Amino acid sequence: MKEIKKITVASPGTVANVVCGFDILGFALHEPADILTLTLTDQKGVTIINHDTYNLPTEPEKNCSGAALLALLKAVPENVGFIVESTKHIKPGSGIGSSAASAAGVVVAANYLLDNRFTNDELVNFATYGEQVASGSRHADNIAPCIFGGVTLIRSNSPLDIIPIPAPPMFVTVVHPQIEVKTSDARQILKTQVLLKDAVRQWGNVAGLIAGFMKHDYELISRSLEDYIVEPIRSILIPAFAEIKTKSMEQGALGGGISGSGPSVFMLSKDEETARKIDNAISEIYSKIGLNFHTYVTTINSEGVKIIEE
Amino acid sequence: MKEIKKITVASPGTVANVVCGFDILGFALHEPADILTLTLTDQKGVTIINHDTYNLPTEPEKNCSGAALLALLKAVPENVGFIVESTKHIKPGSGIGSSAASAAGVVVAANYLLDNRFTNDELVNFATYGEQVASGSRHADNIAPCIFGGVTLIRSNSPLDIIPIPAPPMFVTVVHPQIEVKTSDARQILKTQVLLKDAVRQWGNVAGLIAGFMKHDYELISRSLEDYIVEPIRSILIPAFAEIKTKSMEQGALGGGISGSGPSVFMLSKDEETARKIDNAISEIYSKIGLNFHTYVTTINSEGVKIIEE
Repeated sequence: MKEIKKITVASPGTVANVVCGFDILGFALHEPADILTLTLTDQKGVTIINHDTYNLPTEPEKNCSGAALLALLKAVPENVGFIVESTKHIKPGSGIGSSAASAAGVVVAANYLLDNRFTNDELVNFATYGEQVASGSRHADNIAPCIFGGVTLIRSNSPLDIIPIPAPPMFVTVVHPQIEVKTSDARQILKTQVLLKDAVRQWGNVAGLIAGFMKHDYELISRSLEDYIVEPIRSILIPAFAEIKTKSMEQGALGGGISGSGPSVFMLSKDEETARKIDNAISEIYSKIGLNFHTYVTTINSEGVKIIEE
Repeated sequence: MKEIKKITVASPGTVANVVCGFDILGFALHEPADILTLTLTDQKGVTIINHDTYNLPTEPEKNCSGAALLALLKAVPENVGFIVESTKHIKPGSGIGSSAASAAGVVVAANYLLDNRFTNDELVNFATYGEQVASGSRHADNIAPCIFGGVTLIRSNSPLDIIPIPAPPMFVTVVHPQIEVKTSDARQILKTQVLLKDAVRQWGNVAGLIAGFMKHDYELISRSLEDYIVEPIRSILIPAFAEIKTKSMEQGALGGGISGSGPSVFMLSKDEETARKIDNAISEIYSKIGLNFHTYVTTINSEGVKIIEE
């Protein structure tokens, strides 16, 4: 096997299910990010090497990066393959798109090594095969912001319709309580039916949020960050969720909620000082309870997956 | 009673419930429009004079214009009143905001006569008392675009939160089949519960539509003009709805649906030629059935209520 060329990328964490935008809205973070080195070889197939302690599977079919690359390789006529060296900083199961970062990072890297022959939409499609390995469904709501950067709308999953949404600069406080929330459990507790009047309030807020982002109207963004459908149910899985939200709003948060299907919680702010005050307030709550947790104060990442070494 | 000054306005028809934007999105039309002359007098109270054949009530409490003006007068300390002369061109019950035009037109006119002391939000609030007379509920989804012009989002009804949405130029074909659809019936047949998965598709489309308007992306607007919740149910009340929609799309419509709670149907197009072809196609369908109807080919009205004589 001959190594042809290699590239290293940083693949960022992402927040999906942005409050009222359940299943349709996500955004990329600057931190945390996984570091992925991809080597193009002259032999079909994928080899996975993990440089971290998460014990993720190395059989490519059972690995998020591997499954995504296998899907991509089906669209490549040449006799080539990849070696993936993965150093994950986004803890699996944290709710900030760990599996998406693995899957999205390698397909973007692969595309560079293959002279950018695929569109972003095609890359999202390949990467969703990685999500299937992780959660059983080919959802794109973390993959899309990871690849496109910024805030992305998934108008439709089938056919896939991704729309980048311009948004003003925002700071993000993320707290990851060290508990496990299974995506399958988080989905199962949702009701299959909702009240039409709640759905109308929700899509009023979704419309307000998109308009707020595009008008750079922080007040409108803040008013629109309400979720009448999912948060009232899922928040019971997150320790001290109500208190976190109340204290964050008191510190000046624009709003926030559960990241993905949890357990991480995110809060948006206009400035770094507010984001840090929110970090302190949440840290105090979890310290009191005696719960282990990790926090990030970061910004929305408008680039998505980024090359850091060629 | 002394007449102090007078003004004449054109108050336009409006389309509410814009496809996926049930209860939250509306826009103003250039045609048809009611002509309303308002005279400021030195005597509290409202006098209604109708110059048309619709036999609308002249007791101000039972008249849309009257009820809206009585609400406004409660916020006016001076001893003044109004005479309303109304020439309606928007047929009551057509589904293109006839009652809203009456209520919105007079409060905008009154505000001019009172040296513009009220904000647009306050005017919308007064005018919703006119809607209450017409339909029993103080909804703002026709009032808001009539007063603000263009496309408006009602993010929330309580508290009222109206957001003007910038949109590209569009032509509108409106057809009004001469049948009666009672708003109360149109509301009663809706289910109180909807499937979460349908609600998610709907708010994905709402988000896409807002983004499409603000990006001036006609393709995205077109893809987003889908309604999984209301149209499948309400369209049974509209003669030949499915055929109208199919033929309109064949002629190049961006999309469209039921205007308000019907019976009027509207279709959006990029250019006048397409809008006229759609008019012809729909006219042919209703002529074949032998149904009386009226059509308009017009554009989105970015001004709303307009002064035509001072």
